[in-house]
Amino acid sequence: MKAIQLRNPDDARSLELVDTDTPQLREGEVLVKVHAAGVNRADLLQARGHYPPPPGASEIIGLECAGVIVDPGTTGRREGEEVACLLSGGAYAEFVAVPEGQLMPIPEGYSMTEAAAVVEVACTVWSNLGMLAGLRAGQTVLIHGGAGGIGTFAIQLCKQLGATVAVTAGSAEKLETCRELGADILVNYREEDFAEVLKGRCDVILDIIGAKYLRQNLRALNEDGQLIIIGLQGGVKTEINLGALLPRRLSIRGTTLRARSTEGKAEVVASTIENVWPLLADSRVTHHIHATFPLAEAAAAHELLDSGEVTGKLVLEA
Amino acid sequence: MKAIQLRNPDDARSLELVDTDTPQLREGEVLVKVHAAGVNRADLLQARGHYPPPPGASEIIGLECAGVIVDPGTTGRREGEEVACLLSGGAYAEFVAVPEGQLMPIPEGYSMTEAAAVVEVACTVWSNLGMLAGLRAGQTVLIHGGAGGIGTFAIQLCKQLGATVAVTAGSAEKLETCRELGADILVNYREEDFAEVLKGRCDVILDIIGAKYLRQNLRALNEDGQLIIIGLQGGVKTEINLGALLPRRLSIRGTTLRARSTEGKAEVVASTIENVWPLLADSRVTHHIHATFPLAEAAAAHELLDSGEVTGKLVLEA
Repeated sequence: MKAIQLRNPDDARSLELVDTDTPQLREGEVLVKVHAAGVNRADLLQARGHYPPPPGASEIIGLECAGVIVDPGTTGRREGEEVACLLSGGAYAEFVAVPEGQLMPIPEGYSMTEAAAVVEVACTVWSNLGMLAGLRAGQTVLIHGGAGGIGTFAIQLCKQLGATVAVTAGSAEKLETCRELGADILVNYREEDFAEVLKGRCDVILDIIGAKYLRQNLRALNEDGQLIIIGLQGGVKTEINLGALLPRRLSIRGTTLRARSTEGKAEVVASTIENVWPLLADSRVTHHIHATFPLAEAAAAHELLDSGEVTGKLVLEA
Repeated sequence: MKAIQLRNPDDARSLELVDTDTPQLREGEVLVKVHAAGVNRADLLQARGHYPPPPGASEIIGLECAGVIVDPGTTGRREGEEVACLLSGGAYAEFVAVPEGQLMPIPEGYSMTEAAAVVEVACTVWSNLGMLAGLRAGQTVLIHGGAGGIGTFAIQLCKQLGATVAVTAGSAEKLETCRELGADILVNYREEDFAEVLKGRCDVILDIIGAKYLRQNLRALNEDGQLIIIGLQGGVKTEINLGALLPRRLSIRGTTLRARSTEGKAEVVASTIENVWPLLADSRVTHHIHATFPLAEAAAAHELLDSGEVTGKLVLEA
């Protein structure tokens, strides 16, 4: 089959479509012909060698796709069934092997491309804000990078949960996108200190920055507040003042979807289908696609995402 | 009334029994004549000026007591009722004003002195391991300072919840006490690195050390593990590697009971009476009193607790 690989392992830009082996199915997996694959920031890290696949996962980049089952293996699935897939890797390819628990229906009214744009963000946002943090109506949530793939989805989902939504972004244009999606409090991080604006007001923070924002995030939290870190774009190591946690009973939690076990991913997928898919079917939450690229132009998609000029998601099409 | 105060504010050892005003009742409070008051490590910090009472709380030291209601105020309580009390302060005195939601029954078969020895530890351990962490049967919990007031209680409660219990302590004698109370895994922190012994095995850690143990605590946690920090005897500031949190989905949570609102304390007290008091009534969990002192000798009790040679609790008696 054809798949994207690095021609030169030391050059993250050398992504090329090459011939490679079609994946072998393991027990409980189906083979999916990929029609569309979402691009994630983690893909950029993997191309740079900073985010190796977990043991047993495909070496090929790509954490989500939509396509058609061409071999149901030992599962009871039907050949020809259209599915969206949460993956540990392998989406930037003609075919991918998927554990049955990571298959999702194509959301009602969605194209393959649209489906590939929501799998990873829906599972990430729901597993963290719904399943882990238990975000409730009346609470205030802060979403960093509100105009990104995660952010554009999280704003809408949090509004559906009845929360007040604060966001950070780096331009007036991006903040306007956040406002249109429902965000209530807009902070341009280039002009204002979000901790000063939101001091003591946030019940939950969804953070993709890490070390650089830790002190400010803790300041922004309310009593019983939870800081949930899902990305480390601002570094991993910093000083922490644990004394800041105790009086307000703060929590710092870190998660990644990719490192979860097959069982853990199946649990997230099932809960996301139950709680989020109905919101997609009637457009209470919508996908937000910035641009699409042919699979062969994965390098160009990576370059665009890396520029910071993307609002929402990029999708590769077969 | 008589109460313990610092004769010299700069000398934590200058605790003396002096004459002061009897507390005025506020709405919803009862006046309790104190028969026994538990001694906590927080009391030592307060005597040193490091742990000021929260706004509105008594300036007098002491976070728990048992005694008799002498004025029910506007509550429906009965004069003469024997009660145990969770306090924001004021226990080292002849009388203390107590919000009704912080009154507990004297556990069945307990003396006043025994009751005063369990209020703070029971509420602290239950609110953190039961209410916050949701410790379940089959999980592994690590309790630092296993032979202390919190530790001796936590070991027993965790065994009742069906957990495997690991403890740290600083001597073979203290570890033997922990073993007798039910601890399964014993680590002498002077001889072994607990993180090496417990690497990746702990679902929950109850920590009283803070900064000094942060890195080791994170190493000791299992996937989805929770580090709950309730004391900072090993300092507040340290470096953190946030990258350690994400792949195993770790949480760091800090809490103090004293900083909770009156409503928050009432919630903890009600849940502790419901879940822990029955275990005291039939001795499945027992108090552990190291020594008692007359109230006038509070300074000697503080000196003993500070020595690190105490196993279980110290109680002051009227």
